[in-house]
Amino acid sequence: MNTERRPRTDHPTPVTVVGLGLMGRALAEAFLRGGHPTTVWNRSPEKAAPLVALGAELAGSPRDAVAASPLVVVCVSDHGAVRDLLDPLGDLLDGRVLANLTSGTSAQARETAGWAARHGGSYLDGAIMTVPQAIGTAGAVLLYSGPRSAFEEHEPVLRLLGAGTTHLGEDHGLSALHDVALLGMMWGALNGFLQGTALLGAAGVGAAAFTPYADTLLTTVAGWLPAYARQLDDGSRQPLDATLDTHLAAIEHLVEENESLGVSTELPRLFRALVDRAVASGHGDSGYAAVIEQFRRPVEVRS
Amino acid sequence: MNTERRPRTDHPTPVTVVGLGLMGRALAEAFLRGGHPTTVWNRSPEKAAPLVALGAELAGSPRDAVAASPLVVVCVSDHGAVRDLLDPLGDLLDGRVLANLTSGTSAQARETAGWAARHGGSYLDGAIMTVPQAIGTAGAVLLYSGPRSAFEEHEPVLRLLGAGTTHLGEDHGLSALHDVALLGMMWGALNGFLQGTALLGAAGVGAAAFTPYADTLLTTVAGWLPAYARQLDDGSRQPLDATLDTHLAAIEHLVEENESLGVSTELPRLFRALVDRAVASGHGDSGYAAVIEQFRRPVEVRS
Repeated sequence: MNTERRPRTDHPTPVTVVGLGLMGRALAEAFLRGGHPTTVWNRSPEKAAPLVALGAELAGSPRDAVAASPLVVVCVSDHGAVRDLLDPLGDLLDGRVLANLTSGTSAQARETAGWAARHGGSYLDGAIMTVPQAIGTAGAVLLYSGPRSAFEEHEPVLRLLGAGTTHLGEDHGLSALHDVALLGMMWGALNGFLQGTALLGAAGVGAAAFTPYADTLLTTVAGWLPAYARQLDDGSRQPLDATLDTHLAAIEHLVEENESLGVSTELPRLFRALVDRAVASGHGDSGYAAVIEQFRRPVEVRS
Repeated sequence: MNTERRPRTDHPTPVTVVGLGLMGRALAEAFLRGGHPTTVWNRSPEKAAPLVALGAELAGSPRDAVAASPLVVVCVSDHGAVRDLLDPLGDLLDGRVLANLTSGTSAQARETAGWAARHGGSYLDGAIMTVPQAIGTAGAVLLYSGPRSAFEEHEPVLRLLGAGTTHLGEDHGLSALHDVALLGMMWGALNGFLQGTALLGAAGVGAAAFTPYADTLLTTVAGWLPAYARQLDDGSRQPLDATLDTHLAAIEHLVEENESLGVSTELPRLFRALVDRAVASGHGDSGYAAVIEQFRRPVEVRS
């Protein structure tokens, strides 16, 4: 028996989940399946029905919901909804841990953290890096920032939401920053996939045929990241896969092929502009890590 | 014993490799290690020394090199170099298979194919989707297009370059199109990684700390591709991970966070423009697959 963990099966921590959208319902279900007394609240109470069937307690008000548990998890539409809900309930915060899994910015996380601190509550800001269907699985990553003590107090409960549950640090802004940094990669990969699909589609190749290669490509690039990260951190810029001159020549082909088949060149042109500027600043013989300066030192943007 | 394969060990096919850059040397080395009589040629002959030490024959001219083998693999700097080298050698093509692994566009591939056909040669255009160090490994993907008969005639030899050796189809342009489509995904993912690294770096988080999450993210997105591909092919647009309204709200956070930390917003703004237009066209409740129309029906680009 692991004595460092709370004896969950004997005295499981009561948990409250506020907000029962697709994600909130998945969170509450994971707590219920983990054996925790779970109180739920939602603006439209009918969303709670399947959870009540699993044993959840439906609170009559946000006040009753927050009062019911030492750990309160909030997952609503946006920061405004969080503050509208919680602002009147500051008097309940003392001694509780509030874990806010609503998407927001680092500034919003720090603002809510300040409000919670003024009321004697412990605040964790969190980012859910997975889809509702994957909550509770080994692949689910949830990132928290805020006081480590608050995270550790409830870590076994929070870990029910995903094996990749991690505390990033005390700065409340860290989870929101990691969230958008990772989403930015997601949009990069998804838009790259759509660009490739549109191009090949114009040549009569379906997305299903493209997918196995696209999958291998993403897995290959994922394998390159540690070596790129070392260069980004230590400032070395030697080419790992190809020089920027070679990248630029290939990007020209990407622009040309899309143009000649009538597919959008917006994204390829931006890729070209980034590498073009890196080459112009003397990095033609460097590797792709040298493009980082184009992100760190932004040029003026018109739109 | 697999009787469908050529008895390589008894009568291994002679192969010629023209162009001994980093990639050309890796190709020649794989043929040599596979037991094939290998003739090489390079403009600067000193590059051949390590291959000659492994048993390669160094040809005195491109003509001698091409004349030496029924399979001629070309991997030089660009399309211009290919044509400069091969144009005078049309009389040698009859009965040979020419496999051109030089990066180029689909138009260039079709042009070279026309030239080869006029001289009675069989032409395969190929794209190498891996780094030189990975040539010959299970993870190496090499994509060929052109006459299937020419591919099948030399498939066992070509397969020495990578387990992912594939014939895409008879249209000579297909390998170049797949090449740039996959490279586009690579730049999408790499630029997303640099964007995230720059953002987190501005908040004091190093690339090495970001990398495990970035790796998981890319692997997660790779797992989504088959479901996205089905939607892209059949026109269905229901949300798989989140609605476009939700994506757009999160992209706003990406723009804001980068802006407030002084990091470039060029890429986030392009992501926003794409999703913004998809939402404006009535796809707020759709999934990300609906963004494909922004690639298929390009807007006018200024630069």
